[in-house]
Amino acid sequence: MNFPEHITIDKHTIKIVPRYSETDQGRVVHHSVYPVYFEMGRTELLRVNKVAYKDLEEAGVFFVVAELKIRYRKPARYDEHLLLETRCIDVKETRIEHGYKLTRESDNAVIAEGTSVLACVGPDGKLRRIPDFMFYEDKKQTV
Amino acid sequence: MNFPEHITIDKHTIKIVPRYSETDQGRVVHHSVYPVYFEMGRTELLRVNKVAYKDLEEAGVFFVVAELKIRYRKPARYDEHLLLETRCIDVKETRIEHGYKLTRESDNAVIAEGTSVLACVGPDGKLRRIPDFMFYEDKKQTV
Amino acid sequence: MNFPEHITIDKHTIKIVPRYSETDQGRVVHHSVYPVYFEMGRTELLRVNKVAYKDLEEAGVFFVVAELKIRYRKPARYDEHLLLETRCIDVKETRIEHGYKLTRESDNAVIAEGTSVLACVGPDGKLRRIPDFMFYEDKKQTV
Amino acid sequence: MNFPEHITIDKHTIKIVPRYSETDQGRVVHHSVYPVYFEMGRTELLRVNKVAYKDLEEAGVFFVVAELKIRYRKPARYDEHLLLETRCIDVKETRIEHGYKLTRESDNAVIAEGTSVLACVGPDGKLRRIPDFMFYEDKKQTV
Repeated sequence: MNFPEHITIDKHTIKIVPRYSETDQGRVVHHSVYPVYFEMGRTELLRVNKVAYKDLEEAGVFFVVAELKIRYRKPARYDEHLLLETRCIDVKETRIEHGYKLTRESDNAVIAEGTSVLACVGPDGKLRRIPDFMFYEDKKQTV
Repeated sequence: MNFPEHITIDKHTIKIVPRYSETDQGRVVHHSVYPVYFEMGRTELLRVNKVAYKDLEEAGVFFVVAELKIRYRKPARYDEHLLLETRCIDVKETRIEHGYKLTRESDNAVIAEGTSVLACVGPDGKLRRIPDFMFYEDKKQTV
Repeated sequence: MNFPEHITIDKHTIKIVPRYSETDQGRVVHHSVYPVYFEMGRTELLRVNKVAYKDLEEAGVFFVVAELKIRYRKPARYDEHLLLETRCIDVKETRIEHGYKLTRESDNAVIAEGTSVLACVGPDGKLRRIPDFMFYEDKKQTV
Repeated sequence: MNFPEHITIDKHTIKIVPRYSETDQGRVVHHSVYPVYFEMGRTELLRVNKVAYKDLEEAGVFFVVAELKIRYRKPARYDEHLLLETRCIDVKETRIEHGYKLTRESDNAVIAEGTSVLACVGPDGKLRRIPDFMFYEDKKQTV
């Protein structure tokens, strides 16, 4: 696998357009879909750092969600344009913390905010150290 | 694994109560949820035959959906009681065909009907013969 | 609609058996499915109190998720038996707080814990007071 | 609402990248996700015709899936690039038929093919005639 020397970008924004199947009969995006969006945000934050999560898994590095917090501010609706900003907040020995901000593109209204903690595990499901290249060089890190 | 000598039951009915998250903003169960229900029907048809699909996978026997046909007759709604009848129609060398009938318990209205063809594959994803015990003894089968 | 005079039961446990479609390629239940389970827990906690959430919506009373926190302890797996305990922790003027504990039936291992805050809104999406009958009589409540 | 005089484009291709949450423990995209992709294909085919499905619903025109057929040829995998071609095959008084072809971008392998029939209904859920502008001018149509 071809991984970069170091991850350097700690914030990235993607556009999300809710699918019809993601709505519920309350006419809004179901709250269980937001964790899926956040996961997409993490994947793309990795990708702008030249890392495909798929390749991490092939290299035996898995990230599993250990904690999730979401504050739902306003409903998201079918087919509207949303922006999801994903930031890497902290990288510790076996854990990565991310923050999320989902906004509506048309008026910048905040739809939701959240954080997650991922644990790094090996193919055996046991905690393992995060690969060196995933630590940001320019941050004081609590490793 | 402990598998029965032969599968004997070829039809089974389960109750399904649509979840809120399964509805869409049209106020009905989204059409992509029906294949999930059908899969549950197959799992329970196996189980009344004393076979857990989980154990089949552990024994290296996987069933993947090769064909699916659904006719949607009437909308299914949140929290209503549905009955799903799953029948095994045919077992061939590497393929199993099932039929499905989803009805509303309150008035027997037919909500949907469908069929599926599953292919039996090994851990390598290649077609393999269906285990002997999954053929019905009392049917003329085109093996 | 036929609602009870008062809600009286504040804790209820349901059994959940993860569906195949709820797993991901990490061979565990995807973390976005837990909010769906929690919602099922709330629905059934209401039901043992003789309230169908469906009837609440028909009466113009909607509950939307405002906050969600989940701690994932151990992976949940396809077709295993899980127990979800849902407790009502607090009922305030326009908000209900619930706590969740998801355990594995075979060994009581804690799979996940969580809390949620629901806001009560009317058909217009605006905050409204929770119906009187949804306050527990025997609790000191901060209304 | 601002609808075009006539729909003119009858075929459109979109790129789809399977999400992690769409995979199952068989390490492939779960078969119930394909109908979601097909729906996305229809939405975008409409959009290149300057019609937002959202606007149709606001104008009281709903399309519900009446029939669905899918042939699954090869597994789709997490994060690979897929191309979905959606064609409008026929527009009848109250029904639209679409065809779908899902291919893998890297080698043009056919992942799945399918067809669907949508019925046009009003806000009351009853069949209604498809709006005039949704008939293709240049096709002999069986209206």
